[in-house]
Amino acid sequence: MRELRVGLIGAGFMGKAHSLAYAAMPMFFWPAPAIPVRAVIAEATEELAAEGAARFGFESSTGDWRRVIEDPSIDIVDIATPNHLHPEMAIAAAEAGKHIICEKPLARNAAEAKTMLDAVSAAGVVNMVAFNYRRTPAVALAKKYIDEGAIGEILNFRGTYLQDWSADPASPLSWRFQSAIAGSGAVGDIGTHIIDLARYLAGDITSVIGIARTIVPERPKQSGGRDALGTSRTGGELGPVDVDDEMVTMLRFANGAVGSLEATRNGYGRNNFITFEIHGTLGSLFFNYERRDELQVCFADDPSDRRGFRTVYTGPAHPYGEGLWPIPALGIGYGETKIIEAYDFVSAIVNGTPVRPNFEDGYRISLVADAILESSRTQQWVDVDG
Amino acid sequence: MRELRVGLIGAGFMGKAHSLAYAAMPMFFWPAPAIPVRAVIAEATEELAAEGAARFGFESSTGDWRRVIEDPSIDIVDIATPNHLHPEMAIAAAEAGKHIICEKPLARNAAEAKTMLDAVSAAGVVNMVAFNYRRTPAVALAKKYIDEGAIGEILNFRGTYLQDWSADPASPLSWRFQSAIAGSGAVGDIGTHIIDLARYLAGDITSVIGIARTIVPERPKQSGGRDALGTSRTGGELGPVDVDDEMVTMLRFANGAVGSLEATRNGYGRNNFITFEIHGTLGSLFFNYERRDELQVCFADDPSDRRGFRTVYTGPAHPYGEGLWPIPALGIGYGETKIIEAYDFVSAIVNGTPVRPNFEDGYRISLVADAILESSRTQQWVDVDG
Amino acid sequence: MRELRVGLIGAGFMGKAHSLAYAAMPMFFWPAPAIPVRAVIAEATEELAAEGAARFGFESSTGDWRRVIEDPSIDIVDIATPNHLHPEMAIAAAEAGKHIICEKPLARNAAEAKTMLDAVSAAGVVNMVAFNYRRTPAVALAKKYIDEGAIGEILNFRGTYLQDWSADPASPLSWRFQSAIAGSGAVGDIGTHIIDLARYLAGDITSVIGIARTIVPERPKQSGGRDALGTSRTGGELGPVDVDDEMVTMLRFANGAVGSLEATRNGYGRNNFITFEIHGTLGSLFFNYERRDELQVCFADDPSDRRGFRTVYTGPAHPYGEGLWPIPALGIGYGETKIIEAYDFVSAIVNGTPVRPNFEDGYRISLVADAILESSRTQQWVDVDG
Amino acid sequence: MRELRVGLIGAGFMGKAHSLAYAAMPMFFWPAPAIPVRAVIAEATEELAAEGAARFGFESSTGDWRRVIEDPSIDIVDIATPNHLHPEMAIAAAEAGKHIICEKPLARNAAEAKTMLDAVSAAGVVNMVAFNYRRTPAVALAKKYIDEGAIGEILNFRGTYLQDWSADPASPLSWRFQSAIAGSGAVGDIGTHIIDLARYLAGDITSVIGIARTIVPERPKQSGGRDALGTSRTGGELGPVDVDDEMVTMLRFANGAVGSLEATRNGYGRNNFITFEIHGTLGSLFFNYERRDELQVCFADDPSDRRGFRTVYTGPAHPYGEGLWPIPALGIGYGETKIIEAYDFVSAIVNGTPVRPNFEDGYRISLVADAILESSRTQQWVDVDG
Repeated sequence: MRELRVGLIGAGFMGKAHSLAYAAMPMFFWPAPAIPVRAVIAEATEELAAEGAARFGFESSTGDWRRVIEDPSIDIVDIATPNHLHPEMAIAAAEAGKHIICEKPLARNAAEAKTMLDAVSAAGVVNMVAFNYRRTPAVALAKKYIDEGAIGEILNFRGTYLQDWSADPASPLSWRFQSAIAGSGAVGDIGTHIIDLARYLAGDITSVIGIARTIVPERPKQSGGRDALGTSRTGGELGPVDVDDEMVTMLRFANGAVGSLEATRNGYGRNNFITFEIHGTLGSLFFNYERRDELQVCFADDPSDRRGFRTVYTGPAHPYGEGLWPIPALGIGYGETKIIEAYDFVSAIVNGTPVRPNFEDGYRISLVADAILESSRTQQWVDVDG
Repeated sequence: MRELRVGLIGAGFMGKAHSLAYAAMPMFFWPAPAIPVRAVIAEATEELAAEGAARFGFESSTGDWRRVIEDPSIDIVDIATPNHLHPEMAIAAAEAGKHIICEKPLARNAAEAKTMLDAVSAAGVVNMVAFNYRRTPAVALAKKYIDEGAIGEILNFRGTYLQDWSADPASPLSWRFQSAIAGSGAVGDIGTHIIDLARYLAGDITSVIGIARTIVPERPKQSGGRDALGTSRTGGELGPVDVDDEMVTMLRFANGAVGSLEATRNGYGRNNFITFEIHGTLGSLFFNYERRDELQVCFADDPSDRRGFRTVYTGPAHPYGEGLWPIPALGIGYGETKIIEAYDFVSAIVNGTPVRPNFEDGYRISLVADAILESSRTQQWVDVDG
Repeated sequence: MRELRVGLIGAGFMGKAHSLAYAAMPMFFWPAPAIPVRAVIAEATEELAAEGAARFGFESSTGDWRRVIEDPSIDIVDIATPNHLHPEMAIAAAEAGKHIICEKPLARNAAEAKTMLDAVSAAGVVNMVAFNYRRTPAVALAKKYIDEGAIGEILNFRGTYLQDWSADPASPLSWRFQSAIAGSGAVGDIGTHIIDLARYLAGDITSVIGIARTIVPERPKQSGGRDALGTSRTGGELGPVDVDDEMVTMLRFANGAVGSLEATRNGYGRNNFITFEIHGTLGSLFFNYERRDELQVCFADDPSDRRGFRTVYTGPAHPYGEGLWPIPALGIGYGETKIIEAYDFVSAIVNGTPVRPNFEDGYRISLVADAILESSRTQQWVDVDG
Repeated sequence: MRELRVGLIGAGFMGKAHSLAYAAMPMFFWPAPAIPVRAVIAEATEELAAEGAARFGFESSTGDWRRVIEDPSIDIVDIATPNHLHPEMAIAAAEAGKHIICEKPLARNAAEAKTMLDAVSAAGVVNMVAFNYRRTPAVALAKKYIDEGAIGEILNFRGTYLQDWSADPASPLSWRFQSAIAGSGAVGDIGTHIIDLARYLAGDITSVIGIARTIVPERPKQSGGRDALGTSRTGGELGPVDVDDEMVTMLRFANGAVGSLEATRNGYGRNNFITFEIHGTLGSLFFNYERRDELQVCFADDPSDRRGFRTVYTGPAHPYGEGLWPIPALGIGYGETKIIEAYDFVSAIVNGTPVRPNFEDGYRISLVADAILESSRTQQWVDVDG
């Protein structure tokens, strides 16, 4: 069976998720398109990289990410670092002819993303952005229903991504609150996920208007090399937050649909509350990632005395079901979304088939994100050009 | 015990709801501030009015609504007609010194509403607009929590009012689809309800931008004198719809909060889906009228291992609980919201205390509605002046 | 239009609910089968009765319930008193030729219930027991589905009625905790409601085994004449509870189905948690009264990629929908269940059609309740004879 | 870092789940107590085993499970085969001094389970039964609350395990429907899971009475070597089902609590519907595995105007949170329950600490299962002896 050797850059939370995906993918999708080999992992220091290799099961490690790219045995470069590092790494990897999967958002802004897109286009390598939530089986089922025409023409798409892990002002000044590293805040970090879902399910976005604003202007500085995502109640010196905590938007789609997207880091009680509601001329869909085994669908054509949202639990009869668990509700977790992502990415490399969201999608998502930020400044509707 | 004689204009769905309220109010809130007497009911014809009197328990009936206002024994004029009739009736009633409760929206637009406000102000009569949903006990509980500071300063208010009773293009051309009668569509009919909730809970709205659009441009004309709210699948000749079916908006509040309101008549699977989610600096609230016995509240200060939305079922320990049912979840229905409304209105008359939403509120709600419609035309943020 | 004169005995919580029903019934179901006239109300004292008349809109009042029965103008006797008074009142009313609606449970035990059944049978009067929850539109819809064969043959019925209004040991010693008045505790008070639903939906119960036990053995004695249902945290002298707080049961149905019923007064967080889940050979049903506008139904024959519980909100397309509110989820409350009950009872009187649950049902429900209590003592399965 | 070499017997669904657990455990729980090495996998044939090795990442494979046990390099024997093979394998592994993790139920009945318990006790090896659901973080949180006294003394435990993957009579005659292999049906397969949860959370079970019955008496025979769990609508020759499809029970606990357990394979619309509701003297708990990120808890001491079930999403602040995902609701799937299980098992081997459920628990669970089956035959309460 063919093997694909993976070089992973980044041993944090995303490094963990991707490592799990490579290890588990053939266990789930068998026969596997190829066996991913966890070949080399890079981190900021040799020590961190070595620990990552031991923890995540890589053959070797390095404190210099360029070694990963220079290694001719490596087929796949997996970029799981903070955002500001994506362009340099991805462009180098593309120039080295590596297939690339890059964590989201593709870059800090669309201009940077465009350089990455140009690089992979020139190199002709398989490229993917890790907007994993569209690979939740229930989301893929929503896409299937839409493609089948089951809810008719889409009228309205309403998406949210609400969190509270940093609602507490005592939550530390992670890199996610620093524009030099992250580019933007809620817009880029979580807003782009729901932009991806909107584009995936309702099509191209043509214009937007939004409000993006910072709610917590200062946070305690972090110490130590690791990012403290999700911790809270630390003390110490404060540093400025220069990204947005919240976005509220309206948008228009190419197909005539309208809608809204909201993202916040200050929604107490919401954890990973990624939702969408879609109204069509023949039905409606509702999804909430916090209950991600379920898709709600209402068909207008059901008899009037038997009509209502159906709660469909995804399983073998639904997208990716042949590879997952044998009955519905055994349980889709975060890991499964990443395992499916790895499966589709590896399949694309092996089979030469397209895979999305690719860097083109990542770029267009950044265009939307940039337009939201611009519209918040100008208070005007902004066309999404591309 | 004091009696207040009621003259009701309109024997449709709203006439039913108000009649129930007058009959039941003393049964619930005892000792009652006064006993409402169902004195006279008016409808378009003598026949319809007589039927209304028999059905709704009124002493007499008339086919001429002016008789109600001319009757010196009448204390309360209750206007439960289509929107275009509100101004003339309310102004006449005010000039006759009657206390007035008027169905919502107050008028077809803010200019009309202003004439009504001026009339009641000049007359000094007690006045109320029947935005009943804020009287759902769980909504009143949300208000109580906010006033107590339990969720801190409000950051974001997100409201929806989604329906599907007319999503089917074969649903008839009710007066609610005709601008000459209704003024506007989803904006005025259901959008104003959620505007009322937004103002009640999050305060004054200072600017808005929205999209309002028609989804179903033609519908089968109705025959017969009665409006066919909620029926569907009729056939026959089509007539034009000249009001909006859907609105999507963003808004800013005087207190610095931002938010969004959405209303649609084309959300299959949503029936009377009035929801709000409020994020504050110390907690969050969520309400869904389709499960109206419940309020969801999350307190940021709960210990981290015990924090999450609480589902509070309203009952004797909550607003209006002393008058309703003896235990929670016995069941709040539409009727109860109207019974409470009647209680607060009658109490205001008897006790001289203010009651809201009054015509001032109704006028300001119309200003917001008008601003939404204007912003949809101009594609610009519109300040809400008043 | 024909009038039926009602004599109501009892001006407590149930008196309120029944009064509402008589006043509102013609407003909802029109043309009404007859107009109920609130003629006379009886309570323990003249004073309480007079207050009841003023509050509930009755023409006259009396401190002696026998006056109600002796009054030849009275058509309907409505018994809304504590349980121990039901037999004497109902038998007297039957002998006087009155139609009778009696609050549930019919009596303290089956032997007493049988005397009442014999009396109404001999008198040939219309008789009904006020197990109102089967008149929730969503419950009636479940019955409709079953009768249509939509879920096939019933395999399993699982019912619960869980409450917490008296879970606190400081909650007072209401008559509901005294066997001399109530007969039994959770079994008779709330267990009988779920027995009624089981018989209504799944048919006759042939044998049972259960556990019935007292959890709070003593409670503060009440003072004053009124029962303090739903209050808590009183102090003072304690008195013994001699009824059960909780029942757990298994049961067998005549049609071969099996199941279980549970009722408790000590389920913190459950308020009026009347639920059933029914598994059939072609589908399933689930209902929770706390979200009573909804019925959940799963059809086995739905395509495997679109199968799941449908959440059907009851409205005009469902049982009783023509008389209730014009769209689903406007809101069914406790009052509506009683309004429907009154409608069916009055219709039976006017039209001579059968109405259920009648005293025969009430007697058979008491047989089941008695069998549960017996099985708890003997720890043996007990056949339900009748 | 210490390594533990694993020999896995069985390459089906459970082999997949366990392989994932060994691969992922150090990624999640770091520093890991030891690194599990996927050393050897056994299946019924060399070919199936070789495929399993390739798919699940094992160093070698064998068609003879005894080779696994004879291999002196193997530390852990993991038994993931149908039930009838457990005793021989486990006893052999114990005699060879291997630490053992065995899939559930421990054996076809308590007598067999006892031989396994005796073997591991004599050998002094670490032993565990893979009742994984108690390792769902939300279930572990329920245990934590109970141990902290947060809901007081337990009064009632109500558990269900409802499925529908084989509700269709055309679903094939898997080994799970054959008593010679499985021992029993719903009782042993899924009932034991909920028995485990009942014992874990509410303590020892002292007596039971139940109904166990077969609903679908014949099913299409399977062809080919693999078990078709979760498929349906096959045709062909029918064979007899000689195990139960459904159990309904009542039970008594050593601490005085009562309760019920229900399990069925014929609950259309229920997929992996493992629920428990626990009423205590100070609060209540509710859990539904289909929404497994959530635990519902109600605290009686909350103020009356703020009391209701809290929906707690498990994350870093809850059991096992340090090793899982950085924020709540990123998503717990089936995999995570197995990763935690592997972590606790490996920790016990390395640290010498107890781990449960062990074979003693597995045996006692089988005693309860056997008692349920006996009580169904005798229709008498049966004491659970041990």
